[in-house]
Amino acid sequence: MSDSLPTNDAAARSRALDLLRTNQRFLLCGHVRPDGDCLGAQAALARVLEALGKSVWIVNADPPEPRYDILARDVRFGVYQGGELPRHDVAVLLDFCELSRTGEMAPALAAHASKKLVVDHHVPPGAPWWDEAYVDVRASATGLLVRRIARELGLPLDPVAALGVFTSIVTDTGWFKYSNTDAETLAVAAEMTGLGVDPSALYAALHQRQPLGHPPAFGRALARLEYHAGGRLAVVDLPLAGLDLGALDTDEVLDVLRSVEKVEVVLLLRELATGGVKLSARSKTDFDVHALARRFGGGGHRKAAGATLAGATLAQARERLVEAALEALSAPAKNGG
Amino acid sequence: MSDSLPTNDAAARSRALDLLRTNQRFLLCGHVRPDGDCLGAQAALARVLEALGKSVWIVNADPPEPRYDILARDVRFGVYQGGELPRHDVAVLLDFCELSRTGEMAPALAAHASKKLVVDHHVPPGAPWWDEAYVDVRASATGLLVRRIARELGLPLDPVAALGVFTSIVTDTGWFKYSNTDAETLAVAAEMTGLGVDPSALYAALHQRQPLGHPPAFGRALARLEYHAGGRLAVVDLPLAGLDLGALDTDEVLDVLRSVEKVEVVLLLRELATGGVKLSARSKTDFDVHALARRFGGGGHRKAAGATLAGATLAQARERLVEAALEALSAPAKNGG
Repeated sequence: MSDSLPTNDAAARSRALDLLRTNQRFLLCGHVRPDGDCLGAQAALARVLEALGKSVWIVNADPPEPRYDILARDVRFGVYQGGELPRHDVAVLLDFCELSRTGEMAPALAAHASKKLVVDHHVPPGAPWWDEAYVDVRASATGLLVRRIARELGLPLDPVAALGVFTSIVTDTGWFKYSNTDAETLAVAAEMTGLGVDPSALYAALHQRQPLGHPPAFGRALARLEYHAGGRLAVVDLPLAGLDLGALDTDEVLDVLRSVEKVEVVLLLRELATGGVKLSARSKTDFDVHALARRFGGGGHRKAAGATLAGATLAQARERLVEAALEALSAPAKNGG
Repeated sequence: MSDSLPTNDAAARSRALDLLRTNQRFLLCGHVRPDGDCLGAQAALARVLEALGKSVWIVNADPPEPRYDILARDVRFGVYQGGELPRHDVAVLLDFCELSRTGEMAPALAAHASKKLVVDHHVPPGAPWWDEAYVDVRASATGLLVRRIARELGLPLDPVAALGVFTSIVTDTGWFKYSNTDAETLAVAAEMTGLGVDPSALYAALHQRQPLGHPPAFGRALARLEYHAGGRLAVVDLPLAGLDLGALDTDEVLDVLRSVEKVEVVLLLRELATGGVKLSARSKTDFDVHALARRFGGGGHRKAAGATLAGATLAQARERLVEAALEALSAPAKNGG
């Protein structure tokens, strides 16, 4: 296990590279609802392997969101339709390492007699089950690992692979804002730009595709803001009816609330058409929103978590969540880092 | 003139570097209301010149905004108090080239028998009046030019200079989002990160220090949005009274409006306490907002420009600007890239 967790040593990396070099047919698998890191890393690795003359299939449980059209234009992201997988020698899991996260593909993938290679930057939650791994938990994005793999294989990246790597990086660093943005991240982004990536065009493709109704809806959502604990806690609750919030991108609401200096925790509550309330929680400090979300049956990370409060009205959900958050805020030792 | 506009040739750059090498006392001047590019470039050049054993004063007409505390902690940004300037051999104008933009310092600066050196990445609006210039209009930020100067002088950057350069770059590229974000920009950002800059800490220092009143004011500002030309033009006009907009960061309003897919041009008009209206114009396409701003006596870049419409009421300013913008939008050949 020592060579798999949390960062591979040179020998393990070398075995992973051998798996790529010596085999011919590759299946690149992503996690359910693949994000830009997953899709970008798949795109880049596919181009690298194809440049080596390999056969490559990308197959995910879900199709890419429309914002990733800029990648899907040049790369075929297959969607698993059930049944057997294409015959392949090596299945590469990119940006995750739990078989279950391939969704409906999991049984077919497990049944297939291929070698399993994990390329990831997350801390593996369980014991290694794969054949080989190329893991570095300090890497800001899986795409960065694909960049390293290409270099170690001595292969140049073409513009599509470069776009994949850049997409990976900006997805997982919040466009170079999060604390994982290191010198390698920016240097690789520079290199990819030199290879043809247009950062502003990519930004527009990923983030400037809001509908006309988004800013007015954003304004109405911000009008629902309430502060608690002197501003340390910001809460926005969005009712289903009356505010015409269909065009709203709630990620941007969360961003604006996080931009307030005093705010430590943001809770965004959205009444669901199916009943109940969806919580999105964000932390700017060591406050652990994952712990908060878990109390309501949710999950996530320390700084970003969510939950669905089934059967609660918006007012009930708000009351319970504010109470729980205030309690946690007043107990810094439990929630501190 | 040919060596000054728009980008210096090697001989002109060499003369500019000689001015820095052979003189002893430097006054680094910024423009009124200095932004992060100006302040960051001043900070970086000050450290470089000090490393050469020079005496350096930074003097601006206005103090840095509090968001630049992270720079001002280690660099003294002097504020012009009237009267004579410190005795100096060379005055360096960073991030601008019009003497008038030094505000109240202008007469004293003109009267002082120093050599005048312009370090800038803007298109000079008039004939050269300075002694030497180090100008590259393709450079994403003035801080990038200071980086080049340091390299050409053979000087390493210390962590404070690196923070200055990084601050310059992120200020003028909208945190690596604008179309001026090129490979050099990202490579220098990577280099500065290697020299000690913490991108996420800088982001928090610059952009996550909004007052509690910012999100509600943001919401009220967004309620003023009007679209024209089917959404290609977005206009927000902010009256002085009635909306309690003191806490508003208008840059974020501009960002949200640019995130709308159909929007090509954003005009933000703000009624001034001193009378008149301030325009901030942004373009997402080849539409040249600099050309638009110039028609109203303003300046800037193709994608970001501004002007002050003295004597106009908010309604008058809006009417004139919308008319001019619609006219330009319907004449793509003139405004196209």
